[in-house]
Amino acid sequence: MKGYSQGAQGLEELIVQLEAFVEERGRVQFNSPKNLSMALVGEVGELIEPFQWLTQEQSRHLSAETHEAVRQEIADVQIYLLLLARKLDIDLLQAARDRLQTSPR
Amino acid sequence: MKGYSQGAQGLEELIVQLEAFVEERGRVQFNSPKNLSMALVGEVGELIEPFQWLTQEQSRHLSAETHEAVRQEIADVQIYLLLLARKLDIDLLQAARDRLQTSPR
Amino acid sequence: MKGYSQGAQGLEELIVQLEAFVEERGRVQFNSPKNLSMALVGEVGELIEPFQWLTQEQSRHLSAETHEAVRQEIADVQIYLLLLARKLDIDLLQAARDRLQTSPR
Amino acid sequence: MKGYSQGAQGLEELIVQLEAFVEERGRVQFNSPKNLSMALVGEVGELIEPFQWLTQEQSRHLSAETHEAVRQEIADVQIYLLLLARKLDIDLLQAARDRLQTSPR
Repeated sequence: MKGYSQGAQGLEELIVQLEAFVEERGRVQFNSPKNLSMALVGEVGELIEPFQWLTQEQSRHLSAETHEAVRQEIADVQIYLLLLARKLDIDLLQAARDRLQTSPR
Repeated sequence: MKGYSQGAQGLEELIVQLEAFVEERGRVQFNSPKNLSMALVGEVGELIEPFQWLTQEQSRHLSAETHEAVRQEIADVQIYLLLLARKLDIDLLQAARDRLQTSPR
Repeated sequence: MKGYSQGAQGLEELIVQLEAFVEERGRVQFNSPKNLSMALVGEVGELIEPFQWLTQEQSRHLSAETHEAVRQEIADVQIYLLLLARKLDIDLLQAARDRLQTSPR
Repeated sequence: MKGYSQGAQGLEELIVQLEAFVEERGRVQFNSPKNLSMALVGEVGELIEPFQWLTQEQSRHLSAETHEAVRQEIADVQIYLLLLARKLDIDLLQAARDRLQTSPR
């Protein structure tokens, strides 16, 4: 899990990059939470595709090419999830932490 | 975006909590990347539901109750995304950063 | 595949029932194609859930209870797909037929 | 809703074509209900994409090009839904009919 050590700072930088990314593309006006939730679905649909014909065992040992494709799709899902959370003024990490503590066992 | 300031440390703690969470529930053996990608879809399906009959404008002004429901669903998506990334040894933040830099404008 | 023999007539009757169903619930005004595509996602999210922790082999031999739950979710997906196609004036069967003939091998 | 008049016969023919389609592609062995439910998600993800940045009003008046793209995606969803139902020995139309009659108002 190396790389996560830059997490806190990294997450804030990522959010700044995201804002620039979105504004440059002039899509700010389209970014209602409703639309972002739809975009998230599209990305998750792409993420699941590489796994659909694999056995569970095969999904544990992806080829380098498929692993990279999945890595990019996971990134897209993370980006849209951050955009959606941000739009709704939700602190993603805190929300995840709260969820783990209240989830039934 | 307060709360993100604990990001780096928070993300690592979250991952530790996630591991404990999953192990306690004895689902470790089911957590193939294939299965986790499916669980992610189920969570995104729940996340989109509160938005489906709303206008875009309404989706910007959720009731307190709906906002809290959405917050929990967003958290669930984040948790499964982290679990999936972890299973594939993918650094989520780095992947998102890389994606922003290579994405076509 | 018994039961399909009532297909042609059955499909038309189903559409009439769908119209009554939707009108009675007063949701006609919400049924934009955009919203219906979101509702479809929610239903597919529910459909995938019973399968997510199963092996492929287990998914071929569902318990009676799970089979009935899946049957209902499949029905929901079919209903929203018909509603969406109808809203867009698309003939579902013809579209599927055309797709099979033009799909690359 | 013209075109539906060939429904009953059309649906049976469609199923025969589907079998040939699947067998020719040699994917028969992969078609567990679990995998087919995943493929369905991928197709629904593609179906929702054309709608994600549109307003509801725009989604009612698609360009000819987008309408054709959506028509193909709807067809793909229908094909995988039929394949899944078939694999589970579920009569799609009957399931939809039953669902409409038992659904709460």
